[in-house]
Amino acid sequence: MSVKMVTNAAGRTVPTEVNGVLQTPYQGVDGYRPQGNKAAPPIRSAADYPRDGNKILPSLKEALIRAGLRDGMTISSHHHFRNGDLVMNQVFDIAAELGIKGLRWFPSAAFPCHAPVIDHIRSGVVDWVEGSLNGPLGNFASQGGMRGKAILRSHGGRWQAVQDGEVHIDIAILAAPTADPFGNATGDRGPSACGLLGFGLVDSLYADQVIVVTDNLVPFPCIPWQIQGQNVDSVVVLDRVGDPEKIVSGTTRLTRSPDRLYIAELTAKFVRAAGIMREGFSFQAGAGGTALGFAIFLRKMMEAEGIKARFIRGGSTKYLVEMLEAGLTDYILDGQTFDLDGVRSMRENAGHVNTSPFTSYNWHGKGNFASMVDVVVLGATEVDLNFNANVVTHSDGRMLHGIGGWQNCLFSKCTILPIPSFRDRIPVIVDQVTTLTGPGELIDVIVTERGIAINPLRQDLIDATHNSGLPIRPIEDIKAEVDRLIGGPPAKPQLSDEVVGIVKWVDGTVLDSIYRIEN
Amino acid sequence: MSVKMVTNAAGRTVPTEVNGVLQTPYQGVDGYRPQGNKAAPPIRSAADYPRDGNKILPSLKEALIRAGLRDGMTISSHHHFRNGDLVMNQVFDIAAELGIKGLRWFPSAAFPCHAPVIDHIRSGVVDWVEGSLNGPLGNFASQGGMRGKAILRSHGGRWQAVQDGEVHIDIAILAAPTADPFGNATGDRGPSACGLLGFGLVDSLYADQVIVVTDNLVPFPCIPWQIQGQNVDSVVVLDRVGDPEKIVSGTTRLTRSPDRLYIAELTAKFVRAAGIMREGFSFQAGAGGTALGFAIFLRKMMEAEGIKARFIRGGSTKYLVEMLEAGLTDYILDGQTFDLDGVRSMRENAGHVNTSPFTSYNWHGKGNFASMVDVVVLGATEVDLNFNANVVTHSDGRMLHGIGGWQNCLFSKCTILPIPSFRDRIPVIVDQVTTLTGPGELIDVIVTERGIAINPLRQDLIDATHNSGLPIRPIEDIKAEVDRLIGGPPAKPQLSDEVVGIVKWVDGTVLDSIYRIEN
Repeated sequence: MSVKMVTNAAGRTVPTEVNGVLQTPYQGVDGYRPQGNKAAPPIRSAADYPRDGNKILPSLKEALIRAGLRDGMTISSHHHFRNGDLVMNQVFDIAAELGIKGLRWFPSAAFPCHAPVIDHIRSGVVDWVEGSLNGPLGNFASQGGMRGKAILRSHGGRWQAVQDGEVHIDIAILAAPTADPFGNATGDRGPSACGLLGFGLVDSLYADQVIVVTDNLVPFPCIPWQIQGQNVDSVVVLDRVGDPEKIVSGTTRLTRSPDRLYIAELTAKFVRAAGIMREGFSFQAGAGGTALGFAIFLRKMMEAEGIKARFIRGGSTKYLVEMLEAGLTDYILDGQTFDLDGVRSMRENAGHVNTSPFTSYNWHGKGNFASMVDVVVLGATEVDLNFNANVVTHSDGRMLHGIGGWQNCLFSKCTILPIPSFRDRIPVIVDQVTTLTGPGELIDVIVTERGIAINPLRQDLIDATHNSGLPIRPIEDIKAEVDRLIGGPPAKPQLSDEVVGIVKWVDGTVLDSIYRIEN
Repeated sequence: MSVKMVTNAAGRTVPTEVNGVLQTPYQGVDGYRPQGNKAAPPIRSAADYPRDGNKILPSLKEALIRAGLRDGMTISSHHHFRNGDLVMNQVFDIAAELGIKGLRWFPSAAFPCHAPVIDHIRSGVVDWVEGSLNGPLGNFASQGGMRGKAILRSHGGRWQAVQDGEVHIDIAILAAPTADPFGNATGDRGPSACGLLGFGLVDSLYADQVIVVTDNLVPFPCIPWQIQGQNVDSVVVLDRVGDPEKIVSGTTRLTRSPDRLYIAELTAKFVRAAGIMREGFSFQAGAGGTALGFAIFLRKMMEAEGIKARFIRGGSTKYLVEMLEAGLTDYILDGQTFDLDGVRSMRENAGHVNTSPFTSYNWHGKGNFASMVDVVVLGATEVDLNFNANVVTHSDGRMLHGIGGWQNCLFSKCTILPIPSFRDRIPVIVDQVTTLTGPGELIDVIVTERGIAINPLRQDLIDATHNSGLPIRPIEDIKAEVDRLIGGPPAKPQLSDEVVGIVKWVDGTVLDSIYRIEN
C-alpha cells in the first residue's frame, strides 16, 4: 500500500486517501468544522417532464437506460426493505446485461439477500459497495474482495456525505411500497409496506436521476408523500418489489435469556434511579431482544409512577406502539419500523411520525434531535476501559454490521450499552477495541450481568445513583472478573496491515481503519 | 433610463437589467431552459448549535443582531398571516433603530398592514420590496417611490428564484403560529393559526440565517413540522405574532351579486358540459365570491350525478372542507387556508394535506402538479382578444395585486376566467392588456355574464360544448357588445416610460414591464 497513513485524534491509524478521494482524519467529537457549501443538484425544467404527470416507464431496464446508466456511475438505494429487497439484484443484473462496468453501489445498507452482488463485483460490473455491510458482503469485503474500500457511515453520516457533496449519486433507485405515476411515494401501505422511506430521502433530493420502483401504483396523489414526485424522473411498476416477510417481522421477539432479561431490567432501574425517567422525558431503544426487554421494564415503572414520555425515538416495535396507544407517550418519532405493528401504527396514529436522517441525525445541519433524547439504549460488540466501543466488526476483525444510527445516537444525554460481559467465551470488555466506532467520551454507562459501570466523565450520573442499591462497579473490576473467568484476555485477531475499509465519524472524518482478515 | 430595453417573445418591451441583475427576456411558455445548478447553502455543523436543542433568544432584536443583520441584506418573510402580520413592521423598526440601511425585503407578499414600510423606504432603511405588492405598497411602487424596481413573481416563481440562486436570502423571518424551541414550526394550531407555512418553506431551506418567531411555544417536538428545526438558527417568542381576525376570515363570503352568481353557475355548467366533471377529476377555485359560487354549483352537479373528485386544490374554504367531509373528494391539496374551517380541517382531516410551492408550482423541478389539475377557475383584471390576461395592474396601470399562484395555475388542463364584462363602466376585455401576466395560449375559456368565449386553440373544448345550449360566443362579439354599451373602448392609462417593476414568468424570464403612473 502506497497510501499515506496518519494517526488521528483518537490515536488510530487511518489513510489520508480512500478510493481516490482525500480524507480528513478524525479531529475529536466536534473538533472538525466543515467549510464550503452543500451539493447543488442541476436545475431542471417542468418543460422536460410530462404535463399530465405520468412518468411511468415500461421496465426497469428502460428506466436505467433513460437515466443514462454508464460505466463508473454511483447507484444508490435505501434499505427499508431490509432482507426482503427484490429490486437491487435486478438492477445489477440489468447493468451486467448492458455490459456496464465499474459501478459504485451506495446503499444505506446491504443485506444477506444482496449476496449476488459479490458475483457482480467479481465480474467487474460493480467495483465496490459503499454502505453498511451486513453478512456476506461484509465478510467478502473483510477478505479484501472489493476493488474499492468499504466506507462505513452512520445514517446521519450518509446524509452528511451526500449533502456535503462527498458522494455524488448519479442514479437513485427508490423501491416504494406505494407510489403514484408522478413519483410521490410512501412506505406505510401496500403489499411491501415497510413503514417509511426516510433513508432514501437524501437520494431523492440530491441524485441526478431518481427512479421510483413500486408494486402498488395509486392515482395521484399518493399520500403521504415522504418521497416527492417533484424530485423523481421516472416510475417503474413491477409485480413485486419486496418480500413482505423479510421486510418487517410479523412481531419482534423479546429475549428469553435470563441474563439478558436481567441486564434489561438493570438498565431500566438505572434510568429510573438516575432521575432520567421523569414526566416529559424521551428515550430510544432498538429492536434487539435486550432493548425490547428494557422498554417493557421501563413501561412498568412509568405506569407505576404515572409518568408519561414526550416522545419515544423509534425504530418502532409493537411494544413502543402499545405505549403510544396507551397514552404513555405523546409521539413516536420513527426512523424505521421493525414489525407489522409499527407499520400499522405509522399509517393510523397521528402521533406516530416519520422522520429522516436529516431531522434526526445529520451532524451538518443546524442541530439534530439525537442530542435531545434523554436516554438511548444501544448494543456493541466490544468496549474498552475508556468506554470506546465497536459496533461494526467482531472480535475476529470481520465487518459484519453497519453503524446504523448508532454513532448519531451517542449524542443522547445518556448513552447506555446493555451488553453481556462475554459472548461465546469471548470477553466483551477489552483492552483495545478492534475497530473504534464510538468515542468513549460519548458512552456513559455499560450494563452487564456482572454489574453497571459508569463512565468517570459522568460524575453527575455517579452521584445520582450512588445510593440506589444498584450493582455499580468500576469497569476495570468487571473486566478483571471476566478475564479471570475466561482465563485471560482474548487473543488479538489475525489481521493484515492492508486497509479494506474505514469508519467515518458523523462529520465525515476518518475515525478508524478496518484491516483485511487473514483467513 | 440607461437600461437597455428589448422586445421579448410576447412582443413586450422589457429591461435586460433590473436592480443590477441581468435578466433573460421571456422566450415563450416553455421556451427557456435553465442552465446550471441550484443554490447551495453553506454547510453547518451541529457543534455550533445548542445540544439541548434550545435555540430561543430573548428578543427579535437580539436574534437579528446574532443573525448578522447589516446594510444591504435581503430579509425574507412569508405572507400566511396576510393582513394580520404583526412581525415584519417590528423587524424594520428594529433595523431602523440599529441604523441599518439599504435592505431588500423579499416577502412572498406584502399587505396593507405593511404600509409603515413606506416610511422605512423613504428614510433609507429599506431600498425596495420584492414580492407581491397588495394595496398601499403597490400604489407607492407604481408612483416610482422605491429605490429598486418591483419584481412580481408567482408563488412557484418565488421558489424558482430562490432555488436557482437568483435571489439570495440573508435572513428569513418565519412567523409561526406554533413552534418548539428547536425551531420546528406549524401553521395549523395556536392563537395565530393560519393553516400552513408552505410559502416560507423555501426560505427555511436556502436562507443563510433563519429566525422562527412564535407566540405559541410547545415542547419539542412541534408536530406537524412543515418548517424543520434543522434549518432554523434561532427562535423568538413574542406575545402576539398575528391578529387572528385578519389572518383568516371567520367565514368566506359567497357573492350576492346576481351577475356574479350567474357567471359562477355558467362556469360550473361549462365544466360539466365539457366532460371535465367526471369520476376522479380535480379542480381548483379560489376564495373570491365568484369562485366560491362556482364550487357550490359544481358540488350540486357532482352530487346529482354521483361523482367524486380525486382531489381539490386549495386555497381552502369552508365550502371545500364540506366537500371533503361529505366524501366528495379524497383530498384537499392545500397551499393556503382562507378561513377558520380550512384551518380546522387541516388540523383534523388526514385528507387535507399541506403543500408547498415546490410540490405544486415550481417550474424548475421535475414537474409540478399544477399541470395535472383538470380545471382551474381564476380571476383577471383584463383580458385581450388573444386571451392574454392581466392580474397585477388595474386598467389605470397601478399595481395593486400580486400574481399569487395565478401564473402557475394556467398550466391546468383547462383554465377558466369567470369575469364580469365590465367593472365600474370599464370594459374587462380590451385590445391590449396593460400588463401581460398570463400568455393567452394558456387561457382556455372566458365566462362573462354576456356569454362564454372559448380560446380557438382549444378546438376540443369547442367541440365538446357546441351542442350544450350554453351561450358560447366569439370573444370579439362580447367585446364589441360591451364597447357599444360603454361608448367605445376605454382610454389608455396615463403611464410614463419609466419602468418601475417587472413581471416574471414562471421560469424566471421577464414577461412584461410595469411603468410609473402619471399622477
